[in-house]
Amino acid sequence: MRVDADTARSLVIDLLRQRKASADNACSQADLLVQAELRGHPSHGLQRLPRLLARIDRGLIDPRTTAVGTWLASSVLDMDGMRGLGPAVALAALERLRARIDAAGIAMATIHNSNHLGMLAPYVEKIAEWGCVGIAISSSEALVHPHGGTCALLGTNPIAIAVPTAERPMVLDLATSIVSMGKIHHYAASGMEIPEGWARDVQGRATTNAVDARAGAIAPFGGAKGYGLGIALELLIAALAGTDLAPDIRGTLDSEFVCNKGDVLIAIRARQEAGLFERLSAYLDAVRHSPRAELDQPITIPGDRAAARRTEAVKNGFEVDAALWAELNSLSQQFALEGHTS
Amino acid sequence: MRVDADTARSLVIDLLRQRKASADNACSQADLLVQAELRGHPSHGLQRLPRLLARIDRGLIDPRTTAVGTWLASSVLDMDGMRGLGPAVALAALERLRARIDAAGIAMATIHNSNHLGMLAPYVEKIAEWGCVGIAISSSEALVHPHGGTCALLGTNPIAIAVPTAERPMVLDLATSIVSMGKIHHYAASGMEIPEGWARDVQGRATTNAVDARAGAIAPFGGAKGYGLGIALELLIAALAGTDLAPDIRGTLDSEFVCNKGDVLIAIRARQEAGLFERLSAYLDAVRHSPRAELDQPITIPGDRAAARRTEAVKNGFEVDAALWAELNSLSQQFALEGHTS
Repeated sequence: MRVDADTARSLVIDLLRQRKASADNACSQADLLVQAELRGHPSHGLQRLPRLLARIDRGLIDPRTTAVGTWLASSVLDMDGMRGLGPAVALAALERLRARIDAAGIAMATIHNSNHLGMLAPYVEKIAEWGCVGIAISSSEALVHPHGGTCALLGTNPIAIAVPTAERPMVLDLATSIVSMGKIHHYAASGMEIPEGWARDVQGRATTNAVDARAGAIAPFGGAKGYGLGIALELLIAALAGTDLAPDIRGTLDSEFVCNKGDVLIAIRARQEAGLFERLSAYLDAVRHSPRAELDQPITIPGDRAAARRTEAVKNGFEVDAALWAELNSLSQQFALEGHTS
Repeated sequence: MRVDADTARSLVIDLLRQRKASADNACSQADLLVQAELRGHPSHGLQRLPRLLARIDRGLIDPRTTAVGTWLASSVLDMDGMRGLGPAVALAALERLRARIDAAGIAMATIHNSNHLGMLAPYVEKIAEWGCVGIAISSSEALVHPHGGTCALLGTNPIAIAVPTAERPMVLDLATSIVSMGKIHHYAASGMEIPEGWARDVQGRATTNAVDARAGAIAPFGGAKGYGLGIALELLIAALAGTDLAPDIRGTLDSEFVCNKGDVLIAIRARQEAGLFERLSAYLDAVRHSPRAELDQPITIPGDRAAARRTEAVKNGFEVDAALWAELNSLSQQFALEGHTS
């Protein structure tokens, strides 16, 4: 069914407020989930909410905190997330980085003891609004096998990079796996086979069966190079945030464990040079309009597709699974009926 | 023919000293070229030297300078390379970063008006020796086509990341192209066809002819994701170092133009936590020894192969093209005969 952004946002806020989330925390979490839907990434959208609510109900998420930050050095902020909501903690970190970025030029926040941030793109976009390059990296449960290996030992280790231009920023947001586990779940639910090379089953055998793949391991993107990037990010996050490595990570895909993944957010002031951002925009346009390999396949810049989808979805709403929507509405009513104060 | 590291190093130093390079600058340039040979990357080794010497002879490289650095903010050093040798400028930048890293926690140097750095791995390894995560990124001439495109518009935009562990650091060093232009030259010189999907000719047509590919464009690695990373780095370097974008870059592959590519070096102090580096090493070992997809294909960590090659080559020397070796020796003798003081 089709839902508009405001309706979805209100429902998320209600559900979080019923569970004592502060107004700010409820809004930022709702924004993140709805932004993912608007940009065409439902895997990071409303379908995450039932688990997130269960995590609050079990005390694995504290929806009131914005965490405690400590400057470990003049340009490095360490955030103890205090089990807070991912967006609340990350946005609090960004505010503190922002206050220091002019003096420092480059500043980093490391986050531990927090929860799932959702899509990384909105965070680096916010950094780009300050005229800065933004970089965000997160670790995750082990879902990806090494190049030449068969067992899930690496996280999907997404990285987002935003660079300001004269128009909207360029925003890269990619997982270092060949495909998301969300997409494999989608194939499994639809009874479709997955392409060769995407995944291995729990015994480590190459498989095109999506149900078997779900319990197994996803391939890294781009062969040895993508694997190299993924494992470098795996180590980098652990070395900087002090958090666990993928095989020991829990808490972004379950409602049983405290979340022990880590996040790294970096802001770097772009050069103060007249015409710089215009030069970047002109280059991106030249790439967009350069000769195509296939006439009907446009050349895009990272973030172009998400921006186009968002424009359309802000106007026309977005598709949500009817059962999920019903579940969320019923959760909201049930809470009211049980006599909680909202 | 087989050459040992010391002999090669001495010859490079002689050639540079003949051209008025300072002792330090000659040594660091020689180290970089010889390190590439020892690690099995001849594309970044001695074959770069004749062009580098020609660039000095034409005044495009000043082999005496170590450049001028200015702190743009407390954690951001801007290096005007003063047309210096790439390694001399980058190492001078690293020394200055090192002096600030304890107080800042994270510090960055941007480099412009410098020359080719060579392999990036040795720089990030040096940062890792300080107990820091090192990141190095460079831009280059346009050699790579966008995903879905046919024209060379992106640099090969290499990125290196080192993370310290309890043993030697993990060192990733990759170009964002599917293969190096050096390898395509090697195929062309050997009369071999290149695999499908590697490159396009100057008209933008897919080709397996290495000679045609040489004048055309290389594919990005990893499809849309690798392209996304490459173009993000392209923009990031220009936004931070203020340097040109790939289509306007000259001076790493020719001996006619001032070099106008940019470099970004970032050092980040790793967390001070007992047992952290041991934990990283144990994880890497678990990955190395995890089940293999092919029994005869070991699972490696980024840097493993280069380290093994170096160990072997330090003992037994490395292969150098006989014509190249003769050319370098003749250049050295010729200079002496012409009555220059060395």
